Amino acid sequence: MRPIAVYPGSFDPPTNGHLDIILRATHLFPKVIVAITDNANKYPTFPLKDRLKMLRESTKHISSVQVEFFSGLLVNYLKKKKATVIIRGLRAISDFEYEFQMALMNRKLNKGIETVFLMPDEAYTYISSSLINEVSRLGGNIKDLVPHSVEMLMKKKKKGV
Amino acid sequence: MRPIAVYPGSFDPPTNGHLDIILRATHLFPKVIVAITDNANKYPTFPLKDRLKMLRESTKHISSVQVEFFSGLLVNYLKKKKATVIIRGLRAISDFEYEFQMALMNRKLNKGIETVFLMPDEAYTYISSSLINEVSRLGGNIKDLVPHSVEMLMKKKKKGV
Amino acid sequence: MRPIAVYPGSFDPPTNGHLDIILRATHLFPKVIVAITDNANKYPTFPLKDRLKMLRESTKHISSVQVEFFSGLLVNYLKKKKATVIIRGLRAISDFEYEFQMALMNRKLNKGIETVFLMPDEAYTYISSSLINEVSRLGGNIKDLVPHSVEMLMKKKKKGV
Amino acid sequence: MRPIAVYPGSFDPPTNGHLDIILRATHLFPKVIVAITDNANKYPTFPLKDRLKMLRESTKHISSVQVEFFSGLLVNYLKKKKATVIIRGLRAISDFEYEFQMALMNRKLNKGIETVFLMPDEAYTYISSSLINEVSRLGGNIKDLVPHSVEMLMKKKKKGV
Amino acid sequence: MRPIAVYPGSFDPPTNGHLDIILRATHLFPKVIVAITDNANKYPTFPLKDRLKMLRESTKHISSVQVEFFSGLLVNYLKKKKATVIIRGLRAISDFEYEFQMALMNRKLNKGIETVFLMPDEAYTYISSSLINEVSRLGGNIKDLVPHSVEMLMKKKKKGV
Amino acid sequence: MRPIAVYPGSFDPPTNGHLDIILRATHLFPKVIVAITDNANKYPTFPLKDRLKMLRESTKHISSVQVEFFSGLLVNYLKKKKATVIIRGLRAISDFEYEFQMALMNRKLNKGIETVFLMPDEAYTYISSSLINEVSRLGGNIKDLVPHSVEMLMKKKKKGV
Repeated sequence: MRPIAVYPGSFDPPTNGHLDIILRATHLFPKVIVAITDNANKYPTFPLKDRLKMLRESTKHISSVQVEFFSGLLVNYLKKKKATVIIRGLRAISDFEYEFQMALMNRKLNKGIETVFLMPDEAYTYISSSLINEVSRLGGNIKDLVPHSVEMLMKKKKKGV
Repeated sequence: MRPIAVYPGSFDPPTNGHLDIILRATHLFPKVIVAITDNANKYPTFPLKDRLKMLRESTKHISSVQVEFFSGLLVNYLKKKKATVIIRGLRAISDFEYEFQMALMNRKLNKGIETVFLMPDEAYTYISSSLINEVSRLGGNIKDLVPHSVEMLMKKKKKGV
Repeated sequence: MRPIAVYPGSFDPPTNGHLDIILRATHLFPKVIVAITDNANKYPTFPLKDRLKMLRESTKHISSVQVEFFSGLLVNYLKKKKATVIIRGLRAISDFEYEFQMALMNRKLNKGIETVFLMPDEAYTYISSSLINEVSRLGGNIKDLVPHSVEMLMKKKKKGV
Repeated sequence: MRPIAVYPGSFDPPTNGHLDIILRATHLFPKVIVAITDNANKYPTFPLKDRLKMLRESTKHISSVQVEFFSGLLVNYLKKKKATVIIRGLRAISDFEYEFQMALMNRKLNKGIETVFLMPDEAYTYISSSLINEVSRLGGNIKDLVPHSVEMLMKKKKKGV
Repeated sequence: MRPIAVYPGSFDPPTNGHLDIILRATHLFPKVIVAITDNANKYPTFPLKDRLKMLRESTKHISSVQVEFFSGLLVNYLKKKKATVIIRGLRAISDFEYEFQMALMNRKLNKGIETVFLMPDEAYTYISSSLINEVSRLGGNIKDLVPHSVEMLMKKKKKGV
Repeated sequence: MRPIAVYPGSFDPPTNGHLDIILRATHLFPKVIVAITDNANKYPTFPLKDRLKMLRESTKHISSVQVEFFSGLLVNYLKKKKATVIIRGLRAISDFEYEFQMALMNRKLNKGIETVFLMPDEAYTYISSSLINEVSRLGGNIKDLVPHSVEMLMKKKKKGV
């Protein structure tokens, strides 16, 4: 049986870097569940339902991708979904340290789960959700950095719609 | 005269990684003072007196260990205690950068003080107090990651006792 | 035409490390604008006007240095000032990761802007504004770590003047 | 169709860390080809045929693993094997830098190939082929660090058999 | 007086990453001397005169660039050339460590010299001379990774012309 | 009983950074054995007997320091010397990775041995034996970087005495 993969994150907002990792994951696994959480993110910029909408809109052309919320322990969520693979993107050293720690903890909590690290296109090296929020807040152009549906929603948000 | 060592930290809560470093330090120095502080930790998960209790409980079988509070500058505390050695655990790169900076600053504030870095068992690479708090909050099992007395207190706390 | 350089930062407070970078930048560029911002610093220790005063006082002997506030996108500020160079100091790995990301983002926002990294004297490796604030708050001596005018203002501040 | 994976390396000699990665890879992919090369290793400690033998012996109980030689460009070898995934183990920062560079180069040479990074058990953090060769040469015990068949061959080799 | 800059290196062979740094340097300094050395490179792939030729050919359209050999201490070479700036490209962590050490040593040897670090386009993150030599040796296509004149010479070399 | 410490290395040649670490170690341990080896250094710049002489000369004023050769496994040498502590200096990230790996391996080979990491003065951040050899070979002044006896011997060596 081919393993199901979960790509967890805050996606606040989703970026082109996230989309790049999602696409790569679909080449490796028959089903990729993008799992949005607020576990580590107490004051999000976008409400969960907006992030769900943006991710579904940006991935609707990829049939093997499913977008969901999750809360609680990631390893419990994987069990419920019969998934055994966690997908994580690796951009840089500081990513690596944190990701390494999380992956070892998740393995400790459930030995049957494997964390798989993928590398985004080098064009997305400098993109993070928080940096995009900052650039957008200060009036910068984020057109090439996020999916179209995210750009539209961020514009609306700024206009106070 | 053999140097007295101070192992400072938040210990919020103490972990098996902390205990591992304490034990290693006792093989090197005749007296090891574990010094709990809230200097860099404005909203602790556990009150100081709980952390003192947990650390005393977990180290009561090691006669050369003494557990105390401290506040103010670490170098002043060492002077008061006639200690000349600071013990720090090194787990990873990000640790290293921060620890390096603190050690140089403490040396600048008092040239007579030496910071000694020890490496915990590799089994504790992924353990940090904040990660343990998060796993516990989300319902994960932290039994192998903290001393028994810490596990008991964390359970009580979750039940609202 | 020789390029004008901008050295952006919070400078909360300015340190001897900052002054070292400013001086080095003046050997390379005919005009160096030190640009103070609160973009990433919502609860500063010193108000903007104090930081402006401290930096102007500490750099008044260097005619090619100009100290200013800025808000909004850094690349827009450079355009307004007809500047094409961003100066950044590199102390350590963690600096490097963040600086790399910012420099790539600024290049993306304006291809005509170059980020130039300089290395401070190794004596300033361990100095950061936040560490100086912490040492000062805990009663430590910061005399050799900040310019004289900063030391004076920090003393006044602590006395509640 | 499920992707075939190639795990390339010198394996001079194979270690328990290598075996750990091979096993993890078989949980993800239906066929894992362990591909031994001397591309970057002009003066190997073990001849290619010994490494082939040791790896085949150590993996004979895993039916989805196949051990082979390869030379030339890795991406060409994958094409020949109809494989689209490169497996790499990530132990530490220095690994990461080099692996990142290789993965980007391989992606440049063939966009259809994905490099997947797996993390070995933390017990294997300190194991590398070159360190094992050094420890063995100096008379140290490598029993827990390499597969049994490797230990046997290394012993024979030392006796000059 | 505007400072003259020296960009030292082995350039064995020159890559598009090197060319990118050279171009950026010319936006900052009125004269950029590309200085080829074999100081740290005892068995070069290309003889010095070929590297000189390739670099001159690739930079002939930039009037402020001059290509030369140098041997001996870099700081002495700068003095002879009345240059006060060393240009270095920063791609990654491992670069940074080594470059940091060299820059501090050069500053120790001559306080009047400043090392300026520039960041190449992220498209060149994975390119290094040694990797290009390896890819080319194994039959890979290096067309987008090196200047045209370098590609031509490498082809000739492989044909044994 | 207070632990005996061993500070192993190539010391090819000894530097002021090495001397700084030796001095710091003597503040912590009653006896510090500086142990010179050629284990990882097949083509040393200075013969073992010269390094022994230079280190003995540079440490003759510190009565608790003893200088010796060793070969074979470091942990076996410690056992023979009834020592239980390995001293290592930490300058930078790349140091750290390698040192971490070695310390874990030595702990694996003998659980009773502790590696203690000390930080040299930041003035010695950029000094390494290989860099000093290179600077000296190219005619640079190494006076402030090595002990006097080392400087003298290096001068003699260059004159071919």
